[in-house]
Amino acid sequence: MVNVAILGFGVVGSGAAEVLTDNRRVIEKNLGETVTVKRILDLRDFPDSPFGALVTHDFNDILNDPEITVVAEMMGGSHPAYDFTKACLEAGKSVVTSNKEVVANFGAELLELAAKNGVRYLFEASVGGGIPIIRPMVNDLASNEILSVNGILNGTTNYILTQMLENGAAYDDVLKDAQKKGYAERNPAADVEGLDAARKIVILAALAFGKLLNPNEIHCEGITKITTEDAEFAKDNGYAVKLIGHAELVDGRVLAMVSPRLVPCSNPLAGVSDVFNGILVDANMLGECMFYGKGAGKLPTASAVVADIIDIVAHRGKTERAPKFEVAAEADYADFGAYKCRTMLAFADKADSYEKLEALFGVTPKLSHGRIVLVTKEMTEAELDAKLAESGLKVLSRIRLL
Amino acid sequence: MVNVAILGFGVVGSGAAEVLTDNRRVIEKNLGETVTVKRILDLRDFPDSPFGALVTHDFNDILNDPEITVVAEMMGGSHPAYDFTKACLEAGKSVVTSNKEVVANFGAELLELAAKNGVRYLFEASVGGGIPIIRPMVNDLASNEILSVNGILNGTTNYILTQMLENGAAYDDVLKDAQKKGYAERNPAADVEGLDAARKIVILAALAFGKLLNPNEIHCEGITKITTEDAEFAKDNGYAVKLIGHAELVDGRVLAMVSPRLVPCSNPLAGVSDVFNGILVDANMLGECMFYGKGAGKLPTASAVVADIIDIVAHRGKTERAPKFEVAAEADYADFGAYKCRTMLAFADKADSYEKLEALFGVTPKLSHGRIVLVTKEMTEAELDAKLAESGLKVLSRIRLL
Repeated sequence: MVNVAILGFGVVGSGAAEVLTDNRRVIEKNLGETVTVKRILDLRDFPDSPFGALVTHDFNDILNDPEITVVAEMMGGSHPAYDFTKACLEAGKSVVTSNKEVVANFGAELLELAAKNGVRYLFEASVGGGIPIIRPMVNDLASNEILSVNGILNGTTNYILTQMLENGAAYDDVLKDAQKKGYAERNPAADVEGLDAARKIVILAALAFGKLLNPNEIHCEGITKITTEDAEFAKDNGYAVKLIGHAELVDGRVLAMVSPRLVPCSNPLAGVSDVFNGILVDANMLGECMFYGKGAGKLPTASAVVADIIDIVAHRGKTERAPKFEVAAEADYADFGAYKCRTMLAFADKADSYEKLEALFGVTPKLSHGRIVLVTKEMTEAELDAKLAESGLKVLSRIRLL
Repeated sequence: MVNVAILGFGVVGSGAAEVLTDNRRVIEKNLGETVTVKRILDLRDFPDSPFGALVTHDFNDILNDPEITVVAEMMGGSHPAYDFTKACLEAGKSVVTSNKEVVANFGAELLELAAKNGVRYLFEASVGGGIPIIRPMVNDLASNEILSVNGILNGTTNYILTQMLENGAAYDDVLKDAQKKGYAERNPAADVEGLDAARKIVILAALAFGKLLNPNEIHCEGITKITTEDAEFAKDNGYAVKLIGHAELVDGRVLAMVSPRLVPCSNPLAGVSDVFNGILVDANMLGECMFYGKGAGKLPTASAVVADIIDIVAHRGKTERAPKFEVAAEADYADFGAYKCRTMLAFADKADSYEKLEALFGVTPKLSHGRIVLVTKEMTEAELDAKLAESGLKVLSRIRLL
């Protein structure tokens, strides 16, 4: 029998207890062992929960219990989650987590600490909720060089963008509706400004390229500026609008970014709708493969946490296949100005702008829903910035293509 | 350094040698060890290949070489692939394979043999080519009860059906075109009659439900009877037509089947086009997740073979997380007559058929491209058979919905 402790009995934490209980039989069958929740750490009491008797308010009850060998951290936030994780690893306990903030900020250090102490630190649930993506990248794609990662990594923003495209609704109205339905939080900033996706793409970039970038130091645009005219243009021209976390190597250095993108309908990410997530990995031998499913939610995310617990129990004492990456030095960050793509640009409809834009960009602008719109050829961010400055025109929308 | 042998230097076998060579650096980085091809078994000589000097015609050169610890079987066909695999496992060598025929026919026995000898038998490449699906099902979904598996498992037929739907072309013409392009073999029977998909769905069903069915004893329909009228009806009504391998439990027993399906466009499998594969797994905690990518081809398939080799080297001496299933007894097979779904039926356009069909099925038939078409309510195969017999009408098309 394996005893685990749960840190944080919120949505995902209580979900993990539920998965371990309700799926006890299938887990025992797959693992050949019983996994039992022995203690739960939370500031609150849960007198009505069947797990209420396991709750403690003192972390030391878990840290100092030698019978607890695996700890599942689902507290959210950097502190004290990071501090508790560190203490557990140093005490020889393996840790699994759904906490993308801790992984994105401290993952390299915690992996090193786990290796030093002969235990494991796993974080399948930190990206893509329940979708298997971390383990497949570490194991199944180990025979491949990763060329790029493109992911719809945030269900809230994907729900909003899907509604805007399908129903022609305005951003503010859809956000309110999403808040009513519980798809968006009352303070939606971390989702709609892109920080949540930024944390996830730096984790995927670390797995792909070995360097953990700071999520606060990558290019990060949210969806708050997407207009109904942008959505109309996309629909008219065979694109979906998606908030994409993108990572690739540029001149041998790591580029990770989050921004809205026009995704051609032929791209499998274009079909990832509503609160679903999808992660498209391009690998040098395999080509493109996509992982799709529920990127959030209590039970899906908890099922990934429990899969990590099972992995640890099954491979007890084996730490070799741990993901390995290090904190990126300044020289590891790609120059964002050197990133190349095509971009959709929209301007106010003024008669003399057409010729100017055609001369500058070598493509013919079109009138679209009251704006002059063009899609550039492939060029670097720096080249595009320079051309826009030269034009002297005010850009109403600037959305990259995928 | 780990020495591997390759059995069968055809498309996938030569691809595996290429992946191991061209991706040597990334594999060494991920694994911390070098993997070297020491011998290659084939009936032919390859004087122009850079690997030509490694070729032997004598299996004993591999079997009796104690330095070779992992053998990659990519011969195709049951014999001698099965016999060589057995000999290798008995000699204490782990075996990886892309050979779905061997896994579908002998997988349970070979897994048991591997466990008995403390080695491993892995077959990621046997389903979905390069798409990670076997390892994710065994590891990432270990916390879930699997409810159903639905897969587009054959690229040849998916290419043909995509062309029929998108270009309105007739089956025979598209098949000829696919043969010209190398997407279909000169004798396309195993693909278009569904046997290839049947082998793959019994492997997935074994992972999901623990019982390995005989691929020759499950319900298996190919795509040869799909007409342009069927494709037109699908297009008009928001469906794609896909050859689907399906598995679920019916009354606690395993049902696996292959048949064309009308897939609603809202289902992510509907967007899996051309030679791509997609596998949608429904799990009790995670919900639906999909794995998508190149289901065939030299390098994608080879990259999965090499991922299995890496898995074995990384977990040397650990055999606990091996997939486990046993050969299905007769009582493990679900009664196909009890399988429930909705079905599209087409009949010749005769005036007196409308009322008869409406009375029998309780839905209003419609005229569609010269045929009377209806979509039944959900009912069992047996109920549908009985109603059709009662109608006395000749069915022109009968395609299940997904």
